[in-house]
Amino acid sequence: MKVIYDKNYTVYFGTDVLNQLAQTLINKAYSHVFVLVDENTEKFCLPIVKPYLENFTVIKIESGERNKNLASAEMIWQCLQKNLANRNTVLLNLGGGVLSDLGGFCAATYKRGIDFINIPTTLLGMVDAAIGGKQGIDLNHYKNLIGLFKHPEQVFIYPHFISSLPNIEKTNGLAEIIKHALVDDKKLFEKLVTTHQIDFENMEKLIEKSAKIKIEIVNKDPHEKGLRKVLNFGHTIGHAVETFSLTNDSEPLKHGEAVAIGIICETYISYKLYNINDKDLERVVKFITANFNKYMPKWDTNELFKIMQNDKKNNNSNINFTLLKKIGKAVIDCNCSNELIIEALEFYKNQAYLN
Amino acid sequence: MKVIYDKNYTVYFGTDVLNQLAQTLINKAYSHVFVLVDENTEKFCLPIVKPYLENFTVIKIESGERNKNLASAEMIWQCLQKNLANRNTVLLNLGGGVLSDLGGFCAATYKRGIDFINIPTTLLGMVDAAIGGKQGIDLNHYKNLIGLFKHPEQVFIYPHFISSLPNIEKTNGLAEIIKHALVDDKKLFEKLVTTHQIDFENMEKLIEKSAKIKIEIVNKDPHEKGLRKVLNFGHTIGHAVETFSLTNDSEPLKHGEAVAIGIICETYISYKLYNINDKDLERVVKFITANFNKYMPKWDTNELFKIMQNDKKNNNSNINFTLLKKIGKAVIDCNCSNELIIEALEFYKNQAYLN
Repeated sequence: MKVIYDKNYTVYFGTDVLNQLAQTLINKAYSHVFVLVDENTEKFCLPIVKPYLENFTVIKIESGERNKNLASAEMIWQCLQKNLANRNTVLLNLGGGVLSDLGGFCAATYKRGIDFINIPTTLLGMVDAAIGGKQGIDLNHYKNLIGLFKHPEQVFIYPHFISSLPNIEKTNGLAEIIKHALVDDKKLFEKLVTTHQIDFENMEKLIEKSAKIKIEIVNKDPHEKGLRKVLNFGHTIGHAVETFSLTNDSEPLKHGEAVAIGIICETYISYKLYNINDKDLERVVKFITANFNKYMPKWDTNELFKIMQNDKKNNNSNINFTLLKKIGKAVIDCNCSNELIIEALEFYKNQAYLN
Repeated sequence: MKVIYDKNYTVYFGTDVLNQLAQTLINKAYSHVFVLVDENTEKFCLPIVKPYLENFTVIKIESGERNKNLASAEMIWQCLQKNLANRNTVLLNLGGGVLSDLGGFCAATYKRGIDFINIPTTLLGMVDAAIGGKQGIDLNHYKNLIGLFKHPEQVFIYPHFISSLPNIEKTNGLAEIIKHALVDDKKLFEKLVTTHQIDFENMEKLIEKSAKIKIEIVNKDPHEKGLRKVLNFGHTIGHAVETFSLTNDSEPLKHGEAVAIGIICETYISYKLYNINDKDLERVVKFITANFNKYMPKWDTNELFKIMQNDKKNNNSNINFTLLKKIGKAVIDCNCSNELIIEALEFYKNQAYLN
């Protein structure tokens, strides 16, 4: 087991972290332990974690971004209250990003804050959602519109959970890994794009590296006043595409799939505005189209603009982007013309159909 | 105008604070200004504040503790979102404690936090709710079950609003004033109990003094790890009585009325356990019965215990009290027998019928 971060909270990483989880629960002497699961983590992950827990109460929500909403939050708060959870209670979030965002928000606001511990079970959770301190829920399908900053008490990354994931959940996390490389680590990017196929059974090092990039950036700017905004690369168009898909598709895009589209579009904008050459652009497109399912966009551009105009990241009426100055170096608080945004969406569209 | 606090936020006090409000809004250059009101403050207070505002959008909720709930919070969030409020938005909470608790919670969680400014319009708001940094809503009639700590950007106390209040709103604030005296200021207590009748038209000094006591205590322990708990005096039984009344009375007790009952009961417990003599107890009872409406308790003691057992203040199965060691000196984290709690409730009952 490794401790990969240990300042205001602790992140444990490795195949034997669950012993440490058991130890933490004993040391903290919580009066109540609640475990938040969805139907998938209840089936595949809870049996693995259960031997390390003593008395606990399960709270179950339905999986999927659609359920990261106020109704689920209310259900969790109600469940805590009905079980007389006091301030000396801990909530273990056993799941991916949807579950840790939602559980973290509920814990941070129940009785003005109880402890929560994240046990990410998806690749996305391990390299991104479980470790940033952003908690929240969606409103009207606007991503994370209601939320706050609060770090978990501890995070336990148990990479073995990856093998229980369906393929779509694996690629879902890959988008944030390539993003971390693009904004902060040229070497990692080179490694990724020269790997023909990601070996999901054997990616512990990649998870650790990617999680560390995120932790380091967040640590320098926890409340996203500046530097942390580099992590928003791919997420302006990505969030808009995701929100549109949530409302319009019968099988909506996963977060990572939408971010992958956002990465292609925003790399294209960076290529037009900064020092990204056509070869870099091509490599990004190639990596993403090789690893992600095709998505035939049916979006209404006006609708996407409407969503982007209501993006949390904007400070005025301009749409705020993080772009790439070059591979491994991001630049925050960029604006660009609406024409260029439309051009970037068209670029994705052509690529998606061609490949 | 006086600045009565100026550290992590600023509290202005006086009859000319609204000029300062106008100045603040200009200096901060907010892109959107929203004003949260209820039907009372819209009628009596907004016309006074309006000349100091430029463009703004009104959000109106129904008055009363019953509306400090998730449905109102959702309505406020929806309204902010529909109006495309970005992070450079400010919410002005123009109202009493219900409104500033609710508005503060919504602002602190909208897009992970936008600025909010409190303009308390009730006595309770001025001396207590607007200045503590506790934001939140009720769930299942449990007081402030969902919430967090966050200070407003600024607070403007304009004491002239008092004269527009109905009597019940005036006495509502008086409970916290006598509480501040009991836990922290013997001299103020002596002054209060020797005043035959509180002159609500002429109480600027009393408001300022009482607000300062609260601010000073909160400043020393903002997250209620220790010292701040002295402010919970009267609030263990008070909250239970208030919650019971909210669920059972057609015209539920106001917060201050319930706290006044709590103060009588918890002074009685202090008299039994610490250095409060029968004369002090009598003076507390006399002050409260002289200034508050009579309330004939119809409570079910088992139900009150159930509520107290789910109180946020408890850390284990014991009911947590703040009591008085002597007048002007509180002691936190006390427990007492259920028999003594019942005896205290009976004591109130007898006093209420007798006076």
